[in-house]
Amino acid sequence: MNFAQQHKLYQAGCEDKLEEVVARYFTKGSQVSSAAAYALLGGGKRVRGVMVQAVCDLLGGSAAAALAFAAAMEMVHAFSLVHDDLPCMDDDDFRRGKPSTHVAFGEANALLAGDMLLAEAFSVLADAECSEAQRILAVKLLGRATGAAGMIYGQELDLAYEDAAASAEVLQTIHTHKTGALFTCAVRLGQLAAGSAPGSAAALEEYAKNVGLVFQIVDDILDVTSTTEALGKPVGSDAENAKNTFVTLHGIPGARKEVQRLTGQAVAGLQASYGDKAWFLTEYANQLAARVK
Amino acid sequence: MNFAQQHKLYQAGCEDKLEEVVARYFTKGSQVSSAAAYALLGGGKRVRGVMVQAVCDLLGGSAAAALAFAAAMEMVHAFSLVHDDLPCMDDDDFRRGKPSTHVAFGEANALLAGDMLLAEAFSVLADAECSEAQRILAVKLLGRATGAAGMIYGQELDLAYEDAAASAEVLQTIHTHKTGALFTCAVRLGQLAAGSAPGSAAALEEYAKNVGLVFQIVDDILDVTSTTEALGKPVGSDAENAKNTFVTLHGIPGARKEVQRLTGQAVAGLQASYGDKAWFLTEYANQLAARVK
Repeated sequence: MNFAQQHKLYQAGCEDKLEEVVARYFTKGSQVSSAAAYALLGGGKRVRGVMVQAVCDLLGGSAAAALAFAAAMEMVHAFSLVHDDLPCMDDDDFRRGKPSTHVAFGEANALLAGDMLLAEAFSVLADAECSEAQRILAVKLLGRATGAAGMIYGQELDLAYEDAAASAEVLQTIHTHKTGALFTCAVRLGQLAAGSAPGSAAALEEYAKNVGLVFQIVDDILDVTSTTEALGKPVGSDAENAKNTFVTLHGIPGARKEVQRLTGQAVAGLQASYGDKAWFLTEYANQLAARVK
Repeated sequence: MNFAQQHKLYQAGCEDKLEEVVARYFTKGSQVSSAAAYALLGGGKRVRGVMVQAVCDLLGGSAAAALAFAAAMEMVHAFSLVHDDLPCMDDDDFRRGKPSTHVAFGEANALLAGDMLLAEAFSVLADAECSEAQRILAVKLLGRATGAAGMIYGQELDLAYEDAAASAEVLQTIHTHKTGALFTCAVRLGQLAAGSAPGSAAALEEYAKNVGLVFQIVDDILDVTSTTEALGKPVGSDAENAKNTFVTLHGIPGARKEVQRLTGQAVAGLQASYGDKAWFLTEYANQLAARVK
């Protein structure tokens, strides 16, 4: 199997599991459930869900638990997008090429849809096909990665530095939380699904951290170099908000260089620990570094 | 020990555990964590937390798990209040006699504080001092009671009928979800903490359902008969919104009669199943029916 085929399989695994989640947990006839399904099934790259499955496969784990964990991660990611797009937050009207959830369903329904996705993500973890010990650990990992010291803290910092010039160090702290916490969680849930101890492999921790940063830097580059049509969301918003990003701090060439350096580091660590077995995650890091949307 | 003493002990158990939660899970220096602590520690009756502990005691359970479950329930309740008060929802500026969280900390921080309380409620459940099987079941119960078919669905229905006349039947459906789902969850988590099967005792299920409805009817009565000072939140909002409530449908005397009927039913069921051992929950039902704030 080549990379594109395997990647498509992982993405399809996410989509199928998410369809199953909608059928099992969502409420028919509910506007909030419809809004949540709109946000959840609206495409997206499924980076976190792909990563859970790829790490689990690398470690020889079984698919069932990985799929549940992947779905829960994508639910938390979707919740964060719905809430981040709200007028009192980033106030974005477009997402994935479509009107944002609050534009399509109204603010109240979008708010509740985000809440619902977050709550039911934990239902999905609790119902995963693996041992009780694994499920409990998954709840702990996702709760903390999302909560007071995780992604939500990153979003707080991001908003706090919306109009203030963040230093390179602050910027790194923001991204470590806002994007990095869930990337790290994805890798750890992949380990957990495979029966390994989450956080026990330095190369995977490093991979999650570096790929998370790369993901954010590429976002910043595309905000300058791409178009709204290509991205499916508004571009140029960082410059408009006078927001500091990797690009305003280091320029496009500097940002691209950092992408190369971090990706190289992530890949070298994987190769040293797993060799050719890590072919998918290696190529995935390269693809994410080179992505154009 | 008399009722007032026992009640104070249960409330103090909640407060102490919530202080511990803040110290353990919240982030120092974070505005979102400060906003969440403001919402969480701002008093309140702790009905759901008291109920978890009282049911656990009735069934001879140990306190440690019950306290964690009680704290998680109060976190979910606090999250729901913070989000319900937001401008795009009920738009209430006062809560528990203080400015609402978004008035005190801004909308973005309040939104994130609610999200954070919800996420970390599951961390608290996952760290509870009981078996993994109990913790997993607790996550399932709270996830579903909160999510797509639980409290959040009730809030959706409540908003949908804000300007439309709800029938008595619809009103009951709204309350069964908006208030009832968490009351039922509280009773079941109390059973679970005591090592019983959640949902296995008809008298406790009936108790939760009836006391939940009574709680809502008394809210509706107080919205007409009380003052903003006494309640700590605005009164008269139902009439202003031309909203149907138990009071508009049945009048104050009819509503009071329903309170008596439901409370009598809840108490009779408890007595038949548990006799004098259920003294606290019996008196608690009576006190909640007679509450003036």
